[in-house]
Amino acid sequence: MIRSIHTIKTGASPFHRLKPHPFSLPHPFIQSHTSHLGPPLLNPKSLSRSRRYFRALQMSTHLSPSNSDSGVSSSSSSLPSMVHKPNIGFCQSCGGPTKHVIPEGEERMRAVCTVCEKVHYENPKMVVGCLVEHNSKVLLCKRKIQPSYGLWTLPAGFMEVGESAAEGAARETFEEACADVEVISPFAQLDIPLIGQSYIIFRAKLKNPHFAPGPESLECALFGFDEIPFDSLAFSSVLVTLQMYIEDVRAGKLRSHYCTITKKKFLEKQIR
Amino acid sequence: MIRSIHTIKTGASPFHRLKPHPFSLPHPFIQSHTSHLGPPLLNPKSLSRSRRYFRALQMSTHLSPSNSDSGVSSSSSSLPSMVHKPNIGFCQSCGGPTKHVIPEGEERMRAVCTVCEKVHYENPKMVVGCLVEHNSKVLLCKRKIQPSYGLWTLPAGFMEVGESAAEGAARETFEEACADVEVISPFAQLDIPLIGQSYIIFRAKLKNPHFAPGPESLECALFGFDEIPFDSLAFSSVLVTLQMYIEDVRAGKLRSHYCTITKKKFLEKQIR
Repeated sequence: MIRSIHTIKTGASPFHRLKPHPFSLPHPFIQSHTSHLGPPLLNPKSLSRSRRYFRALQMSTHLSPSNSDSGVSSSSSSLPSMVHKPNIGFCQSCGGPTKHVIPEGEERMRAVCTVCEKVHYENPKMVVGCLVEHNSKVLLCKRKIQPSYGLWTLPAGFMEVGESAAEGAARETFEEACADVEVISPFAQLDIPLIGQSYIIFRAKLKNPHFAPGPESLECALFGFDEIPFDSLAFSSVLVTLQMYIEDVRAGKLRSHYCTITKKKFLEKQIR
Repeated sequence: MIRSIHTIKTGASPFHRLKPHPFSLPHPFIQSHTSHLGPPLLNPKSLSRSRRYFRALQMSTHLSPSNSDSGVSSSSSSLPSMVHKPNIGFCQSCGGPTKHVIPEGEERMRAVCTVCEKVHYENPKMVVGCLVEHNSKVLLCKRKIQPSYGLWTLPAGFMEVGESAAEGAARETFEEACADVEVISPFAQLDIPLIGQSYIIFRAKLKNPHFAPGPESLECALFGFDEIPFDSLAFSSVLVTLQMYIEDVRAGKLRSHYCTITKKKFLEKQIR
């Protein structure tokens, strides 16, 4: 079901682009290219653990039932495998100090309580948000909080226990832009393995034309495609989502997307 | 982009079905019905917090670019809003005991450290897995671990920090079924708000015909659609995924799906 392949990859040379994207102005965190080549490749057995975790991979699923060819692009990396170290100093259950070890039968470093021996797992967090469409414009919020204070974002935030992704996306849109939205459909999933986040972005529309900055926004505004402040976007995920959306709209073919953003630069900073 | 609506809901009367599904044999955790009606409805402003978190919602996205009508079904619930209580007794940063309060500016109960005042957030976990297709059969694993020891599941498990959802799904398939797979495309996202989990299931195919039970499986096998042990499935998410897949294949139209599974019965147990 996959036809086009987008590999999104950041690196030491932030402004080098393998193939310039028409809508992607220079951004400090992103390199991108688009290709339509390559068979699926996701083979955990034949790859070493170190390479497996840090490959760039994006799959873009077309909303076309007649589409039967597929492909996943991959690129290897020589980055070390155990970059992520547990960030848990004390046990949540008994308060005892933890030690960082690889438990028997596992392959990853975990925080294990030295008192009650509980193993603490750290899992990726889901960030849910809306791409709100209104009169051929999209709704963006200027952030009033760190990180990326003063930069523009799609309304989005961490999903909570007790809500669905769609409910969380609508909640965040209401909290950040006071906008009462109707969720239309899933638009994109963007995994960012190196910071342990997965973005789930839904297409949505305003139920009424009202919106205003919430407590975490300096301002909110609707932008036509040519007005989007690409040089002042808060996150790589926002850039990629907007690029894919504009590309789809201009092609007259809205699709749902799955992709992975790798952030080597971030990683290099982490392991220094 | 949404055409069909599936509302999946569990309740006090586990075997009552609003509309029997041809592939859904009695299962202790699921009621399901399928409809093709209703405008989108996801309005966080007009719903009380209590109702907003516990509505049943499923959107099913067709892989058809010509498909422009949409709909989201919802059902209200009179369940209380603050069912989820933080499960964190001690601070991960300093080991101090926590208190459970609603911090200023927030609306949800959080575990806050009584010593360093750090607020601890609990977020949903992502479960990633593969629906492996081989000669018109699907690969299932009989669980060797709790929960659901001895019942059949799709190979799936918690996503790790440092991997994409697709990489995690392939890793889990290798760990549980020793199967070397090629991920094809995202097939379904299934949110289960009441237990704080989101399943991301990918379609995948075997790179070679070898598979065998891993350490967490009693056995692994390929099942034709009429052979699937619907009365011995481990989780509601597995049942729903298999139902949607079989329905798609029989209709000759593979789609990507987004849905929410609500588990009232589970909730009732929690608040008792």
